[in-house]
Amino acid sequence: MKKYSEMTRDELLTMKAALEIEYKEEAAKGHSLNMARGKPGKAQLELAMPMLDVFNSHSDMNTLLGNDTRNYGDLDGIGECRRLIANMMEVEKDNVIVCGNSSLNIMYDTVARSMSFGVNGSTPWCKLDKVKFLCPVPGYDRHFAITELFGIEMINIPLYDDGPDMDMVEQYVNNDSAVKGIWCVPKYSNPTGQTYSDETVRRFANLHPAAEDFRIFWDNAYCVHHLYDDQQDQLLNILTECEKAGNPDMVYIFASTSKISFPGSGVSAIASSQNNIQNILKLMTVQTIGHDKINQLRHVRFFKDVEHLRLHMKKHSDILRPKFEAVLQTLEEELGGLGIGSWYKPRGGYFISFNSMPGCAKKIVGMCKELGVVMTGAGATYPYGKDPEDSNIRIAPSFPSPEELQVASRVFVLCVKLASVEKLLGEF
Amino acid sequence: MKKYSEMTRDELLTMKAALEIEYKEEAAKGHSLNMARGKPGKAQLELAMPMLDVFNSHSDMNTLLGNDTRNYGDLDGIGECRRLIANMMEVEKDNVIVCGNSSLNIMYDTVARSMSFGVNGSTPWCKLDKVKFLCPVPGYDRHFAITELFGIEMINIPLYDDGPDMDMVEQYVNNDSAVKGIWCVPKYSNPTGQTYSDETVRRFANLHPAAEDFRIFWDNAYCVHHLYDDQQDQLLNILTECEKAGNPDMVYIFASTSKISFPGSGVSAIASSQNNIQNILKLMTVQTIGHDKINQLRHVRFFKDVEHLRLHMKKHSDILRPKFEAVLQTLEEELGGLGIGSWYKPRGGYFISFNSMPGCAKKIVGMCKELGVVMTGAGATYPYGKDPEDSNIRIAPSFPSPEELQVASRVFVLCVKLASVEKLLGEF
Repeated sequence: MKKYSEMTRDELLTMKAALEIEYKEEAAKGHSLNMARGKPGKAQLELAMPMLDVFNSHSDMNTLLGNDTRNYGDLDGIGECRRLIANMMEVEKDNVIVCGNSSLNIMYDTVARSMSFGVNGSTPWCKLDKVKFLCPVPGYDRHFAITELFGIEMINIPLYDDGPDMDMVEQYVNNDSAVKGIWCVPKYSNPTGQTYSDETVRRFANLHPAAEDFRIFWDNAYCVHHLYDDQQDQLLNILTECEKAGNPDMVYIFASTSKISFPGSGVSAIASSQNNIQNILKLMTVQTIGHDKINQLRHVRFFKDVEHLRLHMKKHSDILRPKFEAVLQTLEEELGGLGIGSWYKPRGGYFISFNSMPGCAKKIVGMCKELGVVMTGAGATYPYGKDPEDSNIRIAPSFPSPEELQVASRVFVLCVKLASVEKLLGEF
Repeated sequence: MKKYSEMTRDELLTMKAALEIEYKEEAAKGHSLNMARGKPGKAQLELAMPMLDVFNSHSDMNTLLGNDTRNYGDLDGIGECRRLIANMMEVEKDNVIVCGNSSLNIMYDTVARSMSFGVNGSTPWCKLDKVKFLCPVPGYDRHFAITELFGIEMINIPLYDDGPDMDMVEQYVNNDSAVKGIWCVPKYSNPTGQTYSDETVRRFANLHPAAEDFRIFWDNAYCVHHLYDDQQDQLLNILTECEKAGNPDMVYIFASTSKISFPGSGVSAIASSQNNIQNILKLMTVQTIGHDKINQLRHVRFFKDVEHLRLHMKKHSDILRPKFEAVLQTLEEELGGLGIGSWYKPRGGYFISFNSMPGCAKKIVGMCKELGVVMTGAGATYPYGKDPEDSNIRIAPSFPSPEELQVASRVFVLCVKLASVEKLLGEF
């Protein structure tokens, strides 16, 4: 295929006419499809249904230590669930608090606590003139929504194949004491699907923050969410590396089983140094008497141990892989060589990140919507919803059925082509 | 019996000698009993065990509207659970958000949001020089812990048989714009067991707050937690009264099923005006994608409707009533007429509030501890843990078995007697 940029005006006009016919045909079909959010599909939800057989009215509801999960207590989570989740997060049990159903809520709370009470005794961030967070981009819109809500200034950091631009990260963190945090999805990044290299993790661990209360917000949302059994990304353990580097308190790690058991009915956790954990518990004890321990026990009784949990994740990947491949195949077949878009083939996670020609993302997402295919809003992957290039589009292939995905991704590439042609013709 | 205050010094010394022998005997028994926290007992936890039969791997997990509870969505709670809880709270479904497992956490979040973002657009409380809360006393220590943590100044308001001293409440709320809230447990109050009168509720609803962002924090924790079928306290509906009075946004109502289904694994809710609810949802959508909807559906499938829930509460009361009566009988038999303590016989809730002679509460709780009976710390029922009279002791009879309760309450009255004698002898 010829690159669009090398086409003559006449060729582009001819192409446009053909695409417009296709566009009208698709419009007439009245699609109602959604590739907007990282929601597991029905078949994935079925995988965890046996978890609902774990308990009945005659079940023993005690923990291994004999604590009754049906009553108050165990603010930091029941021991066996802390162990299970710690193993999943590749940290020690004592470094983990198992919380409620939402790791996003823990991240929100962690920022909220820092704003109101400071970090381990530092000045509350709300008392400071300026608080800044670094935001590797493209990134997760819900992270950016938290920092925006609290009035924290967000600074874009380019995200490369091996992680954020670490020269820039070091420059900011080591010199500007207003920089208090950085949002990271280090493994199978949302949305790019890439994993930070060992070198990147080590450079993170060896930062010399100007602010003593600087923290890395390490959202390891996709720690066991591989797509391929034989091609799994490995992420270096940041907690261990921070310890080695003499920065034991510098990182908060977050994870959940939202995309392992049930979204909204899983368990979530924060892992950090024992010093940080103790400081968090001191405040958390005012916030709640405890989290849902019956659900914690349900998870342990169902998954047993991290090996079984990994086997369970293989079932998820068997469902997700064909969906990802359907989208990637369509992108390759329809857009390969045209020079109007680029994408990365992820080995895990929930997204495919697509970069259109600059200035086309909003147009493409708008066209998709017109054809009945809802995409994540263009710009959503950037702080304040502003993609300076108007180029990045997050594709979420997990929820639709494979058949729907075929249709949705064909609609998507059609819109990419038409928008690109129009852009090259100078029409917007 | 002769009142202790009317005894001669010799009589008191004789009494003391006898009590000290008893004290030594009890000490030798090595008790290990706890009347400190409002934890349901084992028999109560068993009542909800059939809730664990509600779901199995073949269950239909959809809401009545067809939403899959296993996936993300329904930030404000699933419709049928909002209806159930609204009926329990005696408000409309649209006035309720069903949240996670802890109403305390909702209260914390509500204060935290007001601190960081203000109330419906008002100045964030953290930007103000001074924020004050009124605290009817004795009250719930966990309420006071939240306001203390956020640096909110707490002002004691005497709590009478019919509710807080409303002259004082009106004086503060209507004249001091730094007064932003008041903590209330209006029904079967923690710890006094009393219920606000209709007159009190109407005076609350007709406040003219100096601060537009003043809110009543109405913790209706014991709304359906009666001890007697034929003697139930009735609480006037504050939301309706506030509407009538032209103050529709002035109250936040909290409740949970922690003491209906399982503590820590129930559902909790906030009820308020639709204006307040919409403002809360706007912020809550940044905090979480949603709460545990499977557990919400589990509650609905188990309780069916509020009538069944009330029948379920009757089973709780059948277990709790004898425990309360055992303690009350011991108090009456052992302390009646001695003039060294007073208490109220509650018709619901989780506590018996005991007032010793001034200056004796700490001593009594310390003696109980020495004998192996853990009570709620003296002072805990007051802001900053400071009971100005050192008189109030909260008794929680729910957790121990009836047999343990017999022993524990006899130890308690023994300590009350001995401490009172020592006090009258001027020994401390």
